[in-house]
Amino acid sequence: MGMTMTQKILAAHAGVKSVKAGELIKAKLDLVLGNDVTTPVAVKEFEKIGINKVFDKKKIAIVPDHFTPNKDIKSAEQCKCIRNFAKKMEIENYFEIGQMGIEHALIPEQGLVVAGDVVIGADSHTCTYGALGAFSTGIGSTDMAAGMATGEAWFKVPEAIKFVLKGELAPWVSGKDVILHIIGEIGVDGALYKSMEFTGEGIKNLSMDDRFTMANMAIEAGAKNGIFEVDEKTIDYIKTHSTKEYKVYKADEDAEYTRVIEIDLSSIKPTVAFPHLPENTRTIDEVGDIKIDQVVIGSCTNGRIEDMRIAAKILKGRKVHPDVRAIIFPATQKIYLQALREGLLEIFVEAGVAVSTPTCGPCLGGHMGILASGERAVTTTNRNFVGRMGHIESEIYLASPAVAAASAVTGKISSPKELGL
Amino acid sequence: MGMTMTQKILAAHAGVKSVKAGELIKAKLDLVLGNDVTTPVAVKEFEKIGINKVFDKKKIAIVPDHFTPNKDIKSAEQCKCIRNFAKKMEIENYFEIGQMGIEHALIPEQGLVVAGDVVIGADSHTCTYGALGAFSTGIGSTDMAAGMATGEAWFKVPEAIKFVLKGELAPWVSGKDVILHIIGEIGVDGALYKSMEFTGEGIKNLSMDDRFTMANMAIEAGAKNGIFEVDEKTIDYIKTHSTKEYKVYKADEDAEYTRVIEIDLSSIKPTVAFPHLPENTRTIDEVGDIKIDQVVIGSCTNGRIEDMRIAAKILKGRKVHPDVRAIIFPATQKIYLQALREGLLEIFVEAGVAVSTPTCGPCLGGHMGILASGERAVTTTNRNFVGRMGHIESEIYLASPAVAAASAVTGKISSPKELGL
Repeated sequence: MGMTMTQKILAAHAGVKSVKAGELIKAKLDLVLGNDVTTPVAVKEFEKIGINKVFDKKKIAIVPDHFTPNKDIKSAEQCKCIRNFAKKMEIENYFEIGQMGIEHALIPEQGLVVAGDVVIGADSHTCTYGALGAFSTGIGSTDMAAGMATGEAWFKVPEAIKFVLKGELAPWVSGKDVILHIIGEIGVDGALYKSMEFTGEGIKNLSMDDRFTMANMAIEAGAKNGIFEVDEKTIDYIKTHSTKEYKVYKADEDAEYTRVIEIDLSSIKPTVAFPHLPENTRTIDEVGDIKIDQVVIGSCTNGRIEDMRIAAKILKGRKVHPDVRAIIFPATQKIYLQALREGLLEIFVEAGVAVSTPTCGPCLGGHMGILASGERAVTTTNRNFVGRMGHIESEIYLASPAVAAASAVTGKISSPKELGL
Repeated sequence: MGMTMTQKILAAHAGVKSVKAGELIKAKLDLVLGNDVTTPVAVKEFEKIGINKVFDKKKIAIVPDHFTPNKDIKSAEQCKCIRNFAKKMEIENYFEIGQMGIEHALIPEQGLVVAGDVVIGADSHTCTYGALGAFSTGIGSTDMAAGMATGEAWFKVPEAIKFVLKGELAPWVSGKDVILHIIGEIGVDGALYKSMEFTGEGIKNLSMDDRFTMANMAIEAGAKNGIFEVDEKTIDYIKTHSTKEYKVYKADEDAEYTRVIEIDLSSIKPTVAFPHLPENTRTIDEVGDIKIDQVVIGSCTNGRIEDMRIAAKILKGRKVHPDVRAIIFPATQKIYLQALREGLLEIFVEAGVAVSTPTCGPCLGGHMGILASGERAVTTTNRNFVGRMGHIESEIYLASPAVAAASAVTGKISSPKELGL
């Protein structure tokens, strides 16, 4: 029996010829990641182990991004804890406020993950790096501590679902619509503890930013990881961003999948996930008249340069609706700078958007755009659970940057087509 | 007996020929102002009055700036309250997030205050508009409610201290250093319930932004208001920003002052207020070696375009010290846009600064840069009371944008001269 992409990477990192689904293995780690919420807990656990150094100071990344710039005294103390830990352990990839960004946008940009890597991160959206052909998954703070100490982690080898993509996306349709469509089809537990492996000739028509968005939300279908077949675009991205050696793993012809799902990208419409689950999807023509109070464009899901460009195309020369607060979060300082230089930030501010420094902000109810009771937001973030962005009586509608930007202008959930675009 | 500038404005608005210090008068209001912290309380009081309209929907301004974009559910509910009130009362000068800025930078920029006006605001730094030759003072939420209902307010006519300015500021010295110097001299109660009237031939050498900074901090000496003699620069500013009629009031020759203080601007050195009072000033050469953790440039005191330009001159081609988080807050969207177009924001981000959307942020311990225990900040804000920016064991050093920017580079409290500037 052959192996999936994920299984091949895990076997190589376990130092064995082959693995199969359900097996428990111990794999070497290429990167261990944490943020300002999860790392303080990991630091406490690490200290219990009683050793005074990490397994490899080059292979740990700590990113204060959730409640930064510090929201309150508690978050300030958490950042102080991880800053001191990073100094003491001489961790090379500690990213201070101002040099930073949202972890899942920052780590690939900094070249810290390449194809073939095994990465664990104490954050559920660590699955993002599957876009690069890496095995990458979210773990808890205790596993982060053990990973920092030993450079290894235990995994149960996952089964997999194969997604065969073909065709090309229509204008104003992007990776976010594809992944929302998929979650709508298979449900929030549709890929529970499985790999979502994306293959097919349609991949070449997806940008890297589309792929990051899709892999990022694999966890919203319950998946252990999402992973894309490596192609020229992946190699280009890796060579531009990293000096690390990469290795391309292809699934065996006879790899076993619990399910194979074909998706014609040209059939995907702009898709919106209604409250309060990412699986509650409707295509834009089924949405109806939903008045909104806030628009958020950003997050580890959709705060990359292409997202900024799409939003700017729609907001250029237009104004945010007077009843809407629109907040845009470029995901990293590099993206912020690029958006600034391309004139995108100017377009945003002229349109009446508040442009924030990179931060997770309101995505997980942190700060910088929390909702009051009865308020509705259209947002490019990844979860619309009850109360995630504020009051338990607020509502979150997940959408692409295109739909979010168009909605900011009209004041209700809208397609760019409603603006004649 | 003649009248001071302040007394003349109050007499005119009370409809009497003359007033004298200590007298209680009722004056007509040209503007009533509130923010997201104080207006919800005023709204509750207003509703108790039992009327359903404000005295003049053009003469009220409501600015959500303190905990915006909303920091948490509580602040979101407060903004919802004032947004609904502004809609119901058809208040013309409600400034939504994205169209907004910090109230005391926004109100003059929008031309809502001119020379000769009487302004009350439910925020202690409402005294800022004295830079325009207006009488402007902070009041409580109950007075704001009464002001919105009646268009009038009771005042005890203040005594005054006269500051006679001469000479010109040295390079890298600005209005912030002058006002810190003054507060250092007279103390935080040195002008208790008095007007601080700024006159003399030195005024012409102060920019409007210098004057806004100085008037803004009059309250830090306990003053009822700060006010500048009107000159050509004031008139230019008013004509550029406002279509309102203005009126210039000059103090009588025989006006009575409790004290006259002469200040030679050329003798002012960069000045820093040490914890925990604005009067604990030292000149930069007396500061010693104070390592810092954070730099904040912004606020209603020093978030204007000149402040951005000074910071950019110092940060250009330099890097923020690795042990420092630097956060810059342009005070309004207009200033943000101008700073962006002048290339200042690019300089900041290249230097490793987090550039925030306009907000009061950490100034009053809100969000976006709160300090942990034991941390030290150099900041261009206005108060360094215990715990104002976070933990009660943190320390705040008040300084000019020039000193703050230089300190961001060196990692300790520094003059730009230490960078060879």
